[in-house]
Amino acid sequence: MNSRRANSQPPHSKRPKSRPHHLNTEQLTELGQQLRVDSVRVADAAGSGHPTSSMSAADLMAALLANHLHYDFDRPDHPGNDRLIFSKGHASPLLYSMYLAAGAVDEKEFLTYRTLGSRLEGHPTPRLPWVDVATGSLGQGLPVGVGMALAGQRLGHTPYHVWVLSGDSEMAEGSVWEAIEHAGDQHLDSLTLVIDVNRLGQRGPTRHQRDLDAYGRRLRAFDWHTIEIDGHDLDAVDAAFNEARSTFRKPTAIIAGTRKGRGVASVEDREGMHGKPLPDAESAIEELGGRRSIRVSVAKPAEPETHPRTAGRRGTIALPHYDVGDSVATRDAYGRALAALGTAREDVVVLDGEVSDSTRSEFFAKEHPERFFECYIAEQQMIAAAVGMQALGHVPYASTFAAFLTRAHDFLRMASVSRASINVVGSHAGVSIGQDGPSQMGLEDLAMFRAIHGSTVLHPCDANQTARLVAAMHELPGVCYLRTLRGATPVVYGPDERFPVGGSKVLRRSDADRVTLIGAGVTVHECLKAADLLAGEGFPVRVVDLYSVKPVDERTLQAAADETGCLVTVEDHHPQGGIGDAVAEVFSDGRPAPKRLVRLAVGNMPGSATPAEQLRAAGIDADSIAAGLRLLVEQTLR
Amino acid sequence: MNSRRANSQPPHSKRPKSRPHHLNTEQLTELGQQLRVDSVRVADAAGSGHPTSSMSAADLMAALLANHLHYDFDRPDHPGNDRLIFSKGHASPLLYSMYLAAGAVDEKEFLTYRTLGSRLEGHPTPRLPWVDVATGSLGQGLPVGVGMALAGQRLGHTPYHVWVLSGDSEMAEGSVWEAIEHAGDQHLDSLTLVIDVNRLGQRGPTRHQRDLDAYGRRLRAFDWHTIEIDGHDLDAVDAAFNEARSTFRKPTAIIAGTRKGRGVASVEDREGMHGKPLPDAESAIEELGGRRSIRVSVAKPAEPETHPRTAGRRGTIALPHYDVGDSVATRDAYGRALAALGTAREDVVVLDGEVSDSTRSEFFAKEHPERFFECYIAEQQMIAAAVGMQALGHVPYASTFAAFLTRAHDFLRMASVSRASINVVGSHAGVSIGQDGPSQMGLEDLAMFRAIHGSTVLHPCDANQTARLVAAMHELPGVCYLRTLRGATPVVYGPDERFPVGGSKVLRRSDADRVTLIGAGVTVHECLKAADLLAGEGFPVRVVDLYSVKPVDERTLQAAADETGCLVTVEDHHPQGGIGDAVAEVFSDGRPAPKRLVRLAVGNMPGSATPAEQLRAAGIDADSIAAGLRLLVEQTLR
Repeated sequence: MNSRRANSQPPHSKRPKSRPHHLNTEQLTELGQQLRVDSVRVADAAGSGHPTSSMSAADLMAALLANHLHYDFDRPDHPGNDRLIFSKGHASPLLYSMYLAAGAVDEKEFLTYRTLGSRLEGHPTPRLPWVDVATGSLGQGLPVGVGMALAGQRLGHTPYHVWVLSGDSEMAEGSVWEAIEHAGDQHLDSLTLVIDVNRLGQRGPTRHQRDLDAYGRRLRAFDWHTIEIDGHDLDAVDAAFNEARSTFRKPTAIIAGTRKGRGVASVEDREGMHGKPLPDAESAIEELGGRRSIRVSVAKPAEPETHPRTAGRRGTIALPHYDVGDSVATRDAYGRALAALGTAREDVVVLDGEVSDSTRSEFFAKEHPERFFECYIAEQQMIAAAVGMQALGHVPYASTFAAFLTRAHDFLRMASVSRASINVVGSHAGVSIGQDGPSQMGLEDLAMFRAIHGSTVLHPCDANQTARLVAAMHELPGVCYLRTLRGATPVVYGPDERFPVGGSKVLRRSDADRVTLIGAGVTVHECLKAADLLAGEGFPVRVVDLYSVKPVDERTLQAAADETGCLVTVEDHHPQGGIGDAVAEVFSDGRPAPKRLVRLAVGNMPGSATPAEQLRAAGIDADSIAAGLRLLVEQTLR
Repeated sequence: MNSRRANSQPPHSKRPKSRPHHLNTEQLTELGQQLRVDSVRVADAAGSGHPTSSMSAADLMAALLANHLHYDFDRPDHPGNDRLIFSKGHASPLLYSMYLAAGAVDEKEFLTYRTLGSRLEGHPTPRLPWVDVATGSLGQGLPVGVGMALAGQRLGHTPYHVWVLSGDSEMAEGSVWEAIEHAGDQHLDSLTLVIDVNRLGQRGPTRHQRDLDAYGRRLRAFDWHTIEIDGHDLDAVDAAFNEARSTFRKPTAIIAGTRKGRGVASVEDREGMHGKPLPDAESAIEELGGRRSIRVSVAKPAEPETHPRTAGRRGTIALPHYDVGDSVATRDAYGRALAALGTAREDVVVLDGEVSDSTRSEFFAKEHPERFFECYIAEQQMIAAAVGMQALGHVPYASTFAAFLTRAHDFLRMASVSRASINVVGSHAGVSIGQDGPSQMGLEDLAMFRAIHGSTVLHPCDANQTARLVAAMHELPGVCYLRTLRGATPVVYGPDERFPVGGSKVLRRSDADRVTLIGAGVTVHECLKAADLLAGEGFPVRVVDLYSVKPVDERTLQAAADETGCLVTVEDHHPQGGIGDAVAEVFSDGRPAPKRLVRLAVGNMPGSATPAEQLRAAGIDADSIAAGLRLLVEQTLR
């Protein structure tokens, strides 16, 4: 074993768990072979899968399972359970072989791998109670693990260890380095990264092939403790896990040189063998010494349960109130509501991407610093940490500019596969931010969040509405998005008004309405001004505040279509995927279509200008709306 | 100067440009002050902007502009021009002050900063001819610079140097580390990263504050040459640029300790001064020694022009042909067409994210290895490199799984702000991939690409169509997306059929059609099967292949609505933002709506199953479509 810069010290705050070794080297070797045989078997039965990627890590996982993991498979919700994340999710045959060895799944279920309805999917998902987060998009396991280790370190959990199994290929993902930086900086000694350096990626050799030190010296530069070993030397593997568990004030990376397809000569260390069953499974199993039936008694968490900060709920949330007619930015209202929510709900944690002074999550940070996590400018890490924390019972709110949430799109997508409940808040939406220009404008965010499976998309227009929705998000499942504005907008709702998710508000209405304007956020106010202008001309217009973009208020929109004939959506967003599409969707399922459906949106590429000029240039300010409606009425309604 | 691991050697393939120094230390100091004064002035005039972030880097940029940059401002298209990327795009006052000093913009235009219609936007964009790519989303400049340096190294350009000015905060972005890894691995000695370590991010201190070595040791671990200096010591700065230009086989990072707001005591090194004009600009300018009018004669590229591989166009593209009735995966057709295109068009470059055996870009790689760029599993770097290469006249095709393109969403968004023309190809679209499960399925990609400003979105269903579209993409401006399938689909078009962008194909048609089925990709074949089933029942159904999702064929869809009354979209994508929304959009601008508009899409969360089972589970296979249509006809049409 090549151990460098070891930093083992007598544990102080850290309490490494210890127990007698269950299996000796010989027994571990046998278990490793069993995991290989079972990986080969299960992929062969399925006719697809990644047995060779499983075989390289089998010895590593044998030692972990038998001698180091603390996990109660009967109580996956035990707060003291270690966390095991297969970042190389394609090695699911190995993970499921471990579950088989641990007795968590039986042979019958094991063989349902990759079949319709099975919990044993091609890549692990939380349909299995022992899987906290879905993997399969590489480079996500470590960032999620960082979130879990941070929660363990700062939020009063029963001590647990976080183990992440990573491939070598995925070390090329920037998200991994965001996580490495964060973990080193935060001294996350409860986190161990196991890198299965099997030299071969999907299409051929990795960049660093067998150069373990290429990984090692990078990780050490980020203040990690590293252990470079032969991943098939079970003494070394076992010792490395011990060293990782006893390393103090540093996360540890076990950098293990392995061979893809280890143990079967016809595939071992060969290119072109990725992601397919072995050509001859029967002889491969024979070469591996045949089937075994070792059952591992996995150690349970030794610690008594400590309740993390997710239990205490202190009654009513004292949301700030705003007076109708005041001018308040919804981002301000977000920050203040969040601080109030944090007081009433101990499970709330807040993350930000180094812009808390802009998103206003700083209001929470000042009141509840112990539950605020600065993620710096690393949006992928921010969302991943939120996903990790929600898996442990916390309710995360993660915020940055709406535009920069696109940086974390793949993590949001995977959050939905993880069945994660996270709240995401994007500020500085749309052209209304003004002079900073298009790079800072969220103009694709509604499209991105609407297309996330099971998501909720909210876009309030005033401070009281924002406060209520921030509180409502606390109870919502799935990926929930709130879009806030940079500039101040008038308060139009009283503090007692309610805003059900899936609802809308009709702000102007008469029986004579001939058009309905539908806006959200800043455009609600432009629609109101336009309606007032037109009302003065004897042209009554309905105005709907579509604060809930997904789910959308089908009933109100249908009524507006029936009663006014013509619907005009107005959004500070690109024409695709936002409010216009959300409204059109209502009439795409057999509902009688409105006489006309018109959408106003940001169709041009903005530059710099004042907020008012931007809205005008995009044709979504009150004057443009009014002019458009006059024309519409000329053309079709008279 | 603390220079470590210097690797200066007599240049061989690298030809560092040399010239007599234009300005001595004293003159550089004056120029630095001028750039500060002008940055303060212009932000003050605009009433917004980031003067303090400009002031920290002013000395660095003074030395670069006067003594090291080779650039012909009259000929921004000169292939030998150095490339200067302000990754910290918010320091635009500094960049524009440099342009003023170089005589590229005059005082009058200078003072239009951040006003409506001005080219001098809050963050730089290519509306200015000297700006290759837009910045403002942090962490993008270096990855783009890597693409430019790669092109310079491998594609036969006149030698140029790529200079990237980065902030210290943005070093937290994973994309930066993808780029650092790539640049070190590829020995990009024509690339210099200048890190303006001014200690303060937007909301407060950075993670590493003044610890230059924190950056240095990380970069050295990635095989960079590093130079740590006081960024206000102009001798050291000047020497560092010389050292960077003469360093051989390694990229160089100049890690410069600076002070935000340098030179004005009331703001220098103070928190809370980010992104706002100075409180008292007049006295600040006085403190900086008042206005100056130094004009810098920037050295022009010394080298004669060499034409890179963008000129030769060798006539007809010999696209592969496929026989109707054969079964071919569109990803295969993509790879083969790309290889043929590469033979006929020397400007084509191809990038892939370590899955070229799956995307099939390997066919190109085998035939044109010199123009194939392996980006490993680093999708942000892949798209950024494509953006950098297109700025130099190349036509990039970048491919990975459709699902993993979400990783690069922010880079795609910024590509549109950059007015970049890049072709992006996502394979393994939808549930039809089968057993691998949801993490691998592109189900949000159409929504993402449709919402990108100025984008084109194509989704072919057969091999000949794919080939034609791959060739057509070569000529298209903007971000152009092609979505391909994992599984084989029948060839339904002859090799001579044409597929205009913005068109569609009517595959089944009669005057008696009572419904129109609209599909793309795999669902075209399911629609055809459903139509054939129903035709056998005396229920004639029209089928439209909507291969061009954006722009969409309004005329054909309108005609189908007029003639058949009912449109049913069928897509292997989430219900939001894809084909259903694209079709609905046609009827959102005053066109008479169809009697009914129904959308079939993937509304559930898939698991593992065979492709056929997946299509069935999502309700988008032929039987489900036919069943739905029978019901529809029962309910409303009879």
